[in-house]
Order: sequence, then C-alpha cells, then structure tokens
Amino acid sequence: MSIQVKKSGQLRRAPENFLDAPLRQAISEHGLNDERRGFLRKSFAAATAALASGVAMARPGSVPEGDGDPLILNLQDHAKTLGNPVVMQGYGQPSRFEANLQRRQSPGLTRVPQASVSFAPLQGFFGIITPSGLHFERHHQGWIDIDPAQHRFMINGLVREAKVYTMDDLMRLPSVSRMHFIECGANSATEWGNVAVPTVQYTHGMLSCCEFTGVPLSVLLDDCGIDRKKAKFVLAEGGDGSAMTRTIDIARAMDDVIVAYGMNGEMLRPENGYPLRLVVPGVQGVSWVKWLRRIEVGDQPWATKDEAIHYIDLQPSGLHRQYTSVQECKSVITTPSGGQMLLEKGFHNITGLAWSGRGKIKRVDVSADGGRSWRTARLEGPVLGKCLTRFNIDWNWDGAPAILQSRAIDETGYVQPKIAQLREVRGTKSIYHNNAIQSWKINEDGEVSNVQVA
Amino acid sequence: MSIQVKKSGQLRRAPENFLDAPLRQAISEHGLNDERRGFLRKSFAAATAALASGVAMARPGSVPEGDGDPLILNLQDHAKTLGNPVVMQGYGQPSRFEANLQRRQSPGLTRVPQASVSFAPLQGFFGIITPSGLHFERHHQGWIDIDPAQHRFMINGLVREAKVYTMDDLMRLPSVSRMHFIECGANSATEWGNVAVPTVQYTHGMLSCCEFTGVPLSVLLDDCGIDRKKAKFVLAEGGDGSAMTRTIDIARAMDDVIVAYGMNGEMLRPENGYPLRLVVPGVQGVSWVKWLRRIEVGDQPWATKDEAIHYIDLQPSGLHRQYTSVQECKSVITTPSGGQMLLEKGFHNITGLAWSGRGKIKRVDVSADGGRSWRTARLEGPVLGKCLTRFNIDWNWDGAPAILQSRAIDETGYVQPKIAQLREVRGTKSIYHNNAIQSWKINEDGEVSNVQVA
Repeated sequence: MSIQVKKSGQLRRAPENFLDAPLRQAISEHGLNDERRGFLRKSFAAATAALASGVAMARPGSVPEGDGDPLILNLQDHAKTLGNPVVMQGYGQPSRFEANLQRRQSPGLTRVPQASVSFAPLQGFFGIITPSGLHFERHHQGWIDIDPAQHRFMINGLVREAKVYTMDDLMRLPSVSRMHFIECGANSATEWGNVAVPTVQYTHGMLSCCEFTGVPLSVLLDDCGIDRKKAKFVLAEGGDGSAMTRTIDIARAMDDVIVAYGMNGEMLRPENGYPLRLVVPGVQGVSWVKWLRRIEVGDQPWATKDEAIHYIDLQPSGLHRQYTSVQECKSVITTPSGGQMLLEKGFHNITGLAWSGRGKIKRVDVSADGGRSWRTARLEGPVLGKCLTRFNIDWNWDGAPAILQSRAIDETGYVQPKIAQLREVRGTKSIYHNNAIQSWKINEDGEVSNVQVA
Repeated sequence: MSIQVKKSGQLRRAPENFLDAPLRQAISEHGLNDERRGFLRKSFAAATAALASGVAMARPGSVPEGDGDPLILNLQDHAKTLGNPVVMQGYGQPSRFEANLQRRQSPGLTRVPQASVSFAPLQGFFGIITPSGLHFERHHQGWIDIDPAQHRFMINGLVREAKVYTMDDLMRLPSVSRMHFIECGANSATEWGNVAVPTVQYTHGMLSCCEFTGVPLSVLLDDCGIDRKKAKFVLAEGGDGSAMTRTIDIARAMDDVIVAYGMNGEMLRPENGYPLRLVVPGVQGVSWVKWLRRIEVGDQPWATKDEAIHYIDLQPSGLHRQYTSVQECKSVITTPSGGQMLLEKGFHNITGLAWSGRGKIKRVDVSADGGRSWRTARLEGPVLGKCLTRFNIDWNWDGAPAILQSRAIDETGYVQPKIAQLREVRGTKSIYHNNAIQSWKINEDGEVSNVQVA
C-alpha cells in the first residue's frame, strides 16, 4: 500500500467532511436504534459506493442500479453473492491487488541471474516475520529443488564416528524452533560510496526474518562423538553447484546453530535451501549454508574461496578484514522510505526494523531533522535475540523538508554508527558489513528519497 | 514429511551400518586432511547416490555414469549445474515435493463449499507460525477479494462523531504487531461424541497462529470520541454476503483488539479477510470478523443470528450457553498423531501445540500411558499471551502399544480437562468449545490412531 491520504487531520482530531453528505444525514436522521440498523447498513454501502467516486465495481454485471436516491440499496457485488469456495485454490496466494509487492532483482548486478540477488520488499512488510514467498534470495549458482527422500546429511572429521543422516533420521531427533533474522553481509553495499539506490528494497532488502525449526547442531555433533579437545572449527558445505563452504568456530557451532528443515511453520522453500540449511544466528547469510549436505569438524579455518576471496573487507591500510561474520547492530525506517510519497501534512506513523547479531535490541531512536534531535520509538514485542525488532513512532509532519533517520542500540550498549564514523575506520572500499544509519529525505512535495548525511 | 526411519539406534548411540561400505572405506583410508577433502566430497556424493538405492535422479539426462568404481565422481545433477535463476518465479511457492501438505475440506460437512471449513494440516507444521498459504478457513458465505482502494471502514453509534476510514487513512495511524492464535469455536467438535476422525488436521485443524499488524481498536474509538459512560458493547460487521455480526464487550474492545490489515508480514490473504479483519485475541474465530466494514458502539448485546442461533452450547439442563467467547486452555500432540506411523522402536521427538485464550501457557505435561504418568515437556520460546506455544519432549518407544496425551496448564492455573470431565459438566450435545485432552494410540505396528480415553 502506498501512502495516500485524502483528508487532513491529526490523530484524535475529527477530520472535517470525512463522511459524504447523504450518510451524515442518515446517521443524524435515523439515530442508532436497533430497528434502523439494517437501514443504516444499506446507507453505509450506498455511501461507500458514492465515496468510491464512480470507480467501476470489481466484478461487473450484477450491481443493481439505484433509483437516484443515494439511500436506496446499492450493495457491492461481493456483499450479496455466494463468494468463493474454501480450499479449491490449493496453496494460498496473496490478493491479486498485491501483485506489485515482489522480490526484485537489480538489473545488471551480476552476469547471470543464477548468481544474483533478489531483494525483499521491506517497504511493504509489517511486523517482524518475512513472508516466505518474499524472502530475499542470494545464490552463487542458482537454486535447486532437491528430493528430500534422496537427500543425505553427513558429519565427518574430528568425531568418533562419521555418520550420514536421512531427512527422516533428522526429523526424529530433538527439535527446536527459534526466530532469527538473516542478513547478507553485502546488504547496504551500495551505501559505502555515494551511490544512492532509490528504495529500501535495494538499500536493505537482503534481510529477512523467520521462525526456523530443526535439530541443534550440538546434538548432532554429540551424536557423532565430537572430539571436544581437538575440535576448533567446523566447515559447512552446500549441495548446489557452487560448492559453498564456510568455516564456523566451534564455540558458536556448539551454541545456537541449528540444522534447520522448517521455516515459518512449513518446510524450507527451495530457494532457501530445501530440505536443509544451516541457521547461524547473528552471522551473515553466507554462513547459513543452503542445501546443506555436510559438516566437517577440524582444528583450523579452511580458508575456502567464499571466505578468502569473497566476503572480506578491504581496509584503508590495504589489508583485508577476513572471517568477519557477526552482523553488527543496525536499523532502517521502512515507511516512509525512498520512493514513497506523503500526500499530506499531519499525523504519520513512522515504522522500521532494528536488529543486532550480538543479541537483543535495547532501544531505537528516531530523528526527523537529520540527527540533530532524537526521540525514542516504541518497540513491538516480542524483542528476541538475533531477531528483527519492529519499531513505531508517531510523527506530525509540518510540510517542511525533513530528514528521517533511525539509530539502534543493542543490549551490549553498541550504538549504530553514522556513515561518516564508519568510513573513518573502514574507508570506502568495502562491499560488506555496512551498518550505518540510513537517511531518507522528505521534500516539500512529500517525495521521499535516499540521501547521505554526514 | 512422514516418520520413516531406516535404521535403529537411540539418540547419542551410533547406529550400526549407517554408512555404506565404500564411504566407510573412504573415510578410513583417506582420513580428513585438507588435500583429501575434494576426494572425500566426491566419495560422499557417490555414497549418497548408492544409498539412494537405484531411485532415478530428479532431472535425468546429464548424470554421468560411473566406471564401476563407487568412488568415481557421480555427483547429483543439481550439484554440477547452474540451477534456477532468482526472482523468475514471482511470489515464492513451496517445493513440488510438499504438494501433499494442503488445507483440506471435510467432504459433505456443509451443503456448499462456500459455507464450509478447510482444515489446516497441523501434522506438518513446525514452530508456532502458520504459513499464510495453509491458514485454516471457515466461511459463512465464501471468501471475497475486495479492492482495498474501494474498501471503507466505518465507526458509528455511541461516539461523538461517526467516521469512515479508507485503507490509506488506517495505514497512517499508530500501528501494533502481535502474535496470536485464532481457533474456531467449533474446533474439535467431532470429539464431543465418539466420532473419531482420523487425523489431527480434522480434530484440531481449525487453528492457526500469525503475527498480526494493524491499528488498536481503542485508538479508533478514541478518534471518534467514544462515549465512555454509555458504551458497553461494540458490534463488528463484515462485508461479505453473510453479513457476519458479533457483539464484543467494551472492556475487551478497548484492551487488545486490533483492526488488522497485516498478517505474517504482508497484507491479509483474501480468505482471511483482506484488506481488513478484526483480531480479538483469545476469543473464538467467529468474532475475528473478516472483510471488516463497520464497528458500531452500543449499550447492550445485539443478539445477532451468529450469537443467538449459532455458536451457542446446549447444556444438559436444556439451556444454552450464549456469548461464550474465550477459548480455554488446550493442547494437542501434532507428531506423532493419527494417520502417521512409527516405523521403528527407539528415540522419537514428541511435539505439539498449546494455547490459552486467558494468557500464557505455563506448563505442558505429556503422557505415553493414557494419563497414568506424566512428564513435563520443553516449551519453545517465545511464550506469548493468547498465542500458540510449541512444546517438545524426548520419548523412547519400546515397541509396546502406547497412548500419547498432552495436558496444558495456563498462567491462571487452569488445567486442560479430560473429555470425561468436560462431558460431566457440559453433556454431549455441544458443538463448540471442546478443549479436552486428545489421545493418540500407537499400536504394536507403529500405527497411530485417534481414540477416546475416559
């Protein structure tokens, strides 16, 4: 839904002329006693039809014509027909009116669409759960659709006995369910320079948050008899053509990592690793290996292509940061955001998302003047560790140009930095790990755009 | 996924013969040093291909033939091709291998499929979030697909000024996001008698749980200047052909009721009330009016058809319980459950759902002997008020017949009753509000079926 408001008026102040004249009259003349309720209902329908200003009914053909009196029965088609039957649709779909809310690729970002990104439309999301049908994608060699009956998961290396598990084996084992965000390490990469991509879908859309279900990796490592003295790292390996492999330190592997088969209540989607992916809470998405087929236990990092060549940060010193993995505290306002438009002055709810790879969000502050003054936003519950947190705050737009920002603070006390602070330490050659404060400019016409504020 | 296990062995005990011979040999001969990793990976693929016991590859045509040596490269097709591109799928779908997990109608339950039920497949769910594409449906006159630009929401009655809101008006206003279960008052209706429907989908499948986003009803009532002295009840009215109307007392209306447009991160689905439904936490689903078009404020209950004729309980005294609305504390084991099968003795994770319309779940106990002895299950977080809570508990099946039960206790101290206790008070003529303990019998073959245990 875009932000379009026809009438002015702040919250808790009655807008003028909100009802059209005939309906006002109906209410005033007939009051609210039970006998008149049916009549009022008809009036309401007539009034809403009138309010619709001549737009054609969704399904034409059976709308009776009124006789000129706006109070005569003129119910919408859907209010007097049998409607659609249950179930016949198979797996449920969004309304046809929501077809524009899509994951979108950045054209030309990669040579082939198999090694690309599709960004999640954060500007249209509510709450913290990402709809599975709109979860961001980042593949290194396309997504694959594995038959779970054929899939095997192996643990080998520094264990008493290497084992191969079927999916059915895994689903008999102790199960946990946890809500966690996943963010690509390259999320907000375009903001390192002065490239202002237009919308939050492209600045922050490599971010999603789901409820994951699976077997704790620690249970499986114990099942294989991990050598607790020698084991220092594990290697996670995916089953797709890119042979994605990532090193994870053993403390983390034995802590909250999940070998997951479930996402948002059902099996993982193919593009998210069906039937098995690693969930590494708080860590950049590349380590959440999809189509997971193997965990090897070892005593040193593997320095695979995906950790020696990619997912490293070139520092001003000329050295690379390597094995960075935790996604630091970050937030972004999703509405209003770039590409949206405020059609009117007055009350607006400002909403956005905050997250930290180090734990829970403690506070989110919001500024409407480019960081000169801040107010603390309301956090929606539940506030969970390594999970998105939704924030909301009231705002009364006076019609003057404004710059909206959000600044998150996590439970460790870490404060989300300004882009200038980040550049001071990290330079501008990085691709990854940009967690700077995002700025949205609102001009006098209500247009919202992406700007960088020192 | 059904429960099918090929090998025996309890958790934390290494199963015998888990790896096939060639892979065992590879591990034992080549150890785990870096130089051999590539070789091992190939071996693993070969071994998994062998384990697949001759089942054809999903996409035939490009699988190279081995030369007779099982250690020769024989990667699955999906591990050496480019895979599928991002985005091109439009809105994401479950894997083709999950096509059997569907909402299902009970044939013959109603005369037309527009006034029917489709039950959610709880046996295949994980965690607490219900996938929006599998949310249960219960319509009185079919579902409709309203154009949100045409939709209006009215508040009238005992208010200073009646108002009509557009969707855009509502989306400017203060927003909250909350996770809540929704359960039809008639869920588990078949269990009042001795009709044993076979699966948890049919016994408990009129149950779902989502994250809802919208405007607190209290904010809207205040916006219209509700008469706080006279207002005692509100009437919620839907926009479909059934003219669904339900009375809600004012204390609840001003407490946690939400005029919701969002569900699981995106707009409501058409079959769940798009673009607007009432969320009445803890209360039976019929009051969560879909395609919500009006709230009227009054000083007495309305006694509409849907509260005077339907959704009432015939008591042994011959009187009806009316205006029952809170869904009392309840739980059910979803795996193993009726229609599933344990193929082997040994370790099994028992999992299920618990909920209470009065607040949080405090404890869930599980019995494997028809209620003679109980053990306390592990609750997955977050444990939220008026929300599903997922529980898990380890179980070692010895192969003898067993009767599995779960018993939930909520934060008020209320204990989920046995069916005999419930019948003692309520008789057997009710349709609605059956929150009794559910029993699943496991016979010696591992077959799970629905039984009633006094």
